[in-house]
Amino acid sequence: MITRMSTLFLRTLREDPADAEVPSHKLLVRAGYVRRVAPGIYSWLPLGLRVLRRTEQVVREEMDAIGGQEIHLPALLPKEPYEQTGRWTEYGPNMFRLNDRKGGDYLLGPTHEEIFAQTVKGEYSSYKDYPVVLYQIQTKYRDEERPRAGILRGREFVMKDSYSFDTTDEGLQVSYELHRDAYIRIFDRVGLRYVIVAATSGAMGGSASEEFLADSETGEDTYVRSTGSDFAANVEAVTTPAPPAESIADKPAAEVHHTPDTPTIETLVDHLNAHTERKFTAADTLKNVLVKTRLPGAEEWSLLGVGVPGDREVDMKRLEASLEPAAVELLDEADFARNPFLVKGYVGPKALQDNEVRYLVDPRVVPGTAWATGADRPDHHVLDLVCGRDFQPDGTIEAAEVREGDPSPDGQGTLVTARGIEIGHIFQLGTKYTDAISLDALGQDGKPKRITMGSYGVGVSRLVAAVAEQSHDESGLIWPRELAPADVHVVIAGKDDSVREGAERIAAELDTAGVEVILDDRTVSPGVKFTDAELVGVPTILVVGKGLANGVVEVKDRASGERTEVPAEQAVGHLIGLVRG
Amino acid sequence: MITRMSTLFLRTLREDPADAEVPSHKLLVRAGYVRRVAPGIYSWLPLGLRVLRRTEQVVREEMDAIGGQEIHLPALLPKEPYEQTGRWTEYGPNMFRLNDRKGGDYLLGPTHEEIFAQTVKGEYSSYKDYPVVLYQIQTKYRDEERPRAGILRGREFVMKDSYSFDTTDEGLQVSYELHRDAYIRIFDRVGLRYVIVAATSGAMGGSASEEFLADSETGEDTYVRSTGSDFAANVEAVTTPAPPAESIADKPAAEVHHTPDTPTIETLVDHLNAHTERKFTAADTLKNVLVKTRLPGAEEWSLLGVGVPGDREVDMKRLEASLEPAAVELLDEADFARNPFLVKGYVGPKALQDNEVRYLVDPRVVPGTAWATGADRPDHHVLDLVCGRDFQPDGTIEAAEVREGDPSPDGQGTLVTARGIEIGHIFQLGTKYTDAISLDALGQDGKPKRITMGSYGVGVSRLVAAVAEQSHDESGLIWPRELAPADVHVVIAGKDDSVREGAERIAAELDTAGVEVILDDRTVSPGVKFTDAELVGVPTILVVGKGLANGVVEVKDRASGERTEVPAEQAVGHLIGLVRG
Repeated sequence: MITRMSTLFLRTLREDPADAEVPSHKLLVRAGYVRRVAPGIYSWLPLGLRVLRRTEQVVREEMDAIGGQEIHLPALLPKEPYEQTGRWTEYGPNMFRLNDRKGGDYLLGPTHEEIFAQTVKGEYSSYKDYPVVLYQIQTKYRDEERPRAGILRGREFVMKDSYSFDTTDEGLQVSYELHRDAYIRIFDRVGLRYVIVAATSGAMGGSASEEFLADSETGEDTYVRSTGSDFAANVEAVTTPAPPAESIADKPAAEVHHTPDTPTIETLVDHLNAHTERKFTAADTLKNVLVKTRLPGAEEWSLLGVGVPGDREVDMKRLEASLEPAAVELLDEADFARNPFLVKGYVGPKALQDNEVRYLVDPRVVPGTAWATGADRPDHHVLDLVCGRDFQPDGTIEAAEVREGDPSPDGQGTLVTARGIEIGHIFQLGTKYTDAISLDALGQDGKPKRITMGSYGVGVSRLVAAVAEQSHDESGLIWPRELAPADVHVVIAGKDDSVREGAERIAAELDTAGVEVILDDRTVSPGVKFTDAELVGVPTILVVGKGLANGVVEVKDRASGERTEVPAEQAVGHLIGLVRG
Repeated sequence: MITRMSTLFLRTLREDPADAEVPSHKLLVRAGYVRRVAPGIYSWLPLGLRVLRRTEQVVREEMDAIGGQEIHLPALLPKEPYEQTGRWTEYGPNMFRLNDRKGGDYLLGPTHEEIFAQTVKGEYSSYKDYPVVLYQIQTKYRDEERPRAGILRGREFVMKDSYSFDTTDEGLQVSYELHRDAYIRIFDRVGLRYVIVAATSGAMGGSASEEFLADSETGEDTYVRSTGSDFAANVEAVTTPAPPAESIADKPAAEVHHTPDTPTIETLVDHLNAHTERKFTAADTLKNVLVKTRLPGAEEWSLLGVGVPGDREVDMKRLEASLEPAAVELLDEADFARNPFLVKGYVGPKALQDNEVRYLVDPRVVPGTAWATGADRPDHHVLDLVCGRDFQPDGTIEAAEVREGDPSPDGQGTLVTARGIEIGHIFQLGTKYTDAISLDALGQDGKPKRITMGSYGVGVSRLVAAVAEQSHDESGLIWPRELAPADVHVVIAGKDDSVREGAERIAAELDTAGVEVILDDRTVSPGVKFTDAELVGVPTILVVGKGLANGVVEVKDRASGERTEVPAEQAVGHLIGLVRG
């Protein structure tokens, strides 16, 4: 099909939209690909829709290639299945909820684990039916608190979500690896630079999980990678290597000191350095942070003490990820009042253990290490409190902040932080959802076998933005061939009938050969046409102008800017060669 | 692609689902095409999704052929544009409404006139930009009071909606005709039997409008057609031919009669036939029905008298369509109490006119006709009240019921009623929506010109059901080639390796030739496979069985049931011939 700029529903903009901060947002709006309808809610205009559909098609082909079967579930869903798994409440304000005319509770699907599991349960009953991978490419809804960056974080967006159903853990592992490989092919095909990072499973439940993050300074996801290996992980998924245990025998006895007005680590270190012979740093102190936790469905909150070296903050996101699915809150004044053994600013391990408060410590707090920490009375700290001698933690927890320069968990190199855009996520869910609805297969032995699930997502509309984010220059978008809204952008650069006719003829021949052409047949200046061609970002631009009188046209590579003069009669063959690679 | 029944996510059912009444619903569920998730909300399983996508593609191709440009608007929409046009309230409980986390009002789009108009306003400004036709194929939402018949009347469904924007009425007429022709091609391509009926425009506003109705006894839409011409119309759109006026001169004078206990037409006719020399029928009486009407935005209700021949009921849907956009209600006791000149059961034209109540009559009430009607006091009627002499109606109104045998409005033949499924609707909207947002183009004369709009819909998912409704037999579905989930259904009817290998080879060759194959490679009996093949409804079934030893396979035409033996080595060529037509 030839797309004529004279009639195409497209008006490019010379100015960046006022609300746009990141390049993909600015350029997709300026080039007329998307338009904002409400916060985080966008329309796709003709060129944008083509790129979106081509992106969907890449995803679809790779899902089909691993045996995925495409189905299509509703976006408007009844409450009941989500109530069964607890997500009706767990999802909180991120989920759009509504009532129908009879007052029934409905939601707009953010992901579809429940309904896919229910669908499989409706059709399958025997172990012979499995494994199965089902997927859909569908409009999804999340009521983001801060929708931003155009289609990068929208409230209505297109997602490919797939779900694997297996009778064994080994089967789940195979389904997971198949998806991992498919995702690698998808992101490679669209020319993206990305990393695969170890991730925690978040609100999805389950165990093993990895994220695919597109390299981007404007990305919302912070991750760390090693300077010495391939290791990369979400900050929430970073584990802290434990140093070797130390000998307890040679440690001096613990001793309580009067340390007036030292409720913070900084004031404590200053005091100790001024009033003892020894030299302390924050890393020598043990900071005890009190929180309360509550498992879903539980009535009561439980106290939890978290001990981390004083030179590090507790990272609440890491703490929450470690305690998931429990909810976590900091203590308020009333909590302290109810538990007078907690002396604010001076909490130590002893009071926690004497009062049977669960106490988890950073992996660096190994047996034999000696700490300066709270003495459980105002203005007092204890020095040389030795782990394994003077206190016995109930276990370790990943709660301390991760910093650049920390050792990589795999022992090779140190960590540096980077930013990315989450474009894919793969999870081994296990039986969280199948337990909720008792999804079993009748096994070969005649006994029911609980099905184990995986859940896998690609943010399809976000992928369009991520590609734009990585692939543009100051003049506009630069699409990879797989996703471009057309193969060749033909610019008629001249008013002569011969120029127009020559361009029309080339466009028609390309069209006949199955090459998608945008033909700029408008009655505007060549300069305007060149500017729009760069902005729109089709990979190959053909300029038919004055040179045609000498039998020559110009082929411009959008990405490199390279221009090549080509004999007009060879233009079609040359362009087909470029397009077909 | 070869679809293997051994792994296809499909379990056919031998029994009709309990909640299904119409054939398409029963068969689409039994053949595993769709599954119910909630009332009027369905999932599309693999075979169903293929038919839906192929249906979309037919619609897309015909829309592209008339120059339509595909875009994609959100389904989740802000309230404001719908408030500007009044539809936020007009739509009533049929529209799903919801709040976002900040309390903002949103809706799930039932149709998108407002947003399309807004989108065009955002891009276009000059008369040179027009005309433009934009369309989308999108999931839509309507909270139907009684969702029924599976995907035939769902609450979440797929629709193609397009909108034309023109600077002149003549342009709108052209856009309308283009759509009308495209719709004819769409419905012809999918092999549907349908009629095009004149329609009223309903809640959409605007003037000219036609509906495309698929012939179906199970359809919800009643329409009438002429026995003597092509005339067909929605009951609401039927106009009543007026008989010629009669001479007033020879009519006897009006005379009031005491008619005790005759508050109904039947009792009145009986009384008159018993107490006068003349022979009356209900058609000789004039029944006056009182309603109150109120235009949108108006505070006060106004009284309206509607006079129809006594042998006909007032059809409230026709009355409402005639008075649109005004709301209409019957009078309650309080209304009668407030207007004591209205004598219930004995209301006549005189009291209405004396009290300046608007009085509209059926087109059959022409000047010179004489009527028996209420005398505005209890137990009294007046005979020989002559229109144009004794009372002067304020106009005519289409409010009386339409009956089989009524003369066709075009004067040729009489009307019969029929039922159909609305699969398409085309409207000339005019400026209702462009007025609301002041969508103007700067004209050649430098003055703003109001844009005029058309709105055109095809119920895409409903179209799938309508085809199934028309094209099935007691064994299952019978798809037209354009929509079938595959081209050939290959049944392996035998356990011999040679049979299996022969079938696999033919399937592979068909696949290579671009023919879509379902291959039944399951280890179930041939009988089960035949039953499923009939149920699934692929147009051509290839049976590879014992005959293969003699070099023969069997080709069965699903629609006619005709079986043909074909030499195995010619099977691929034969099938390609059938598929390519």
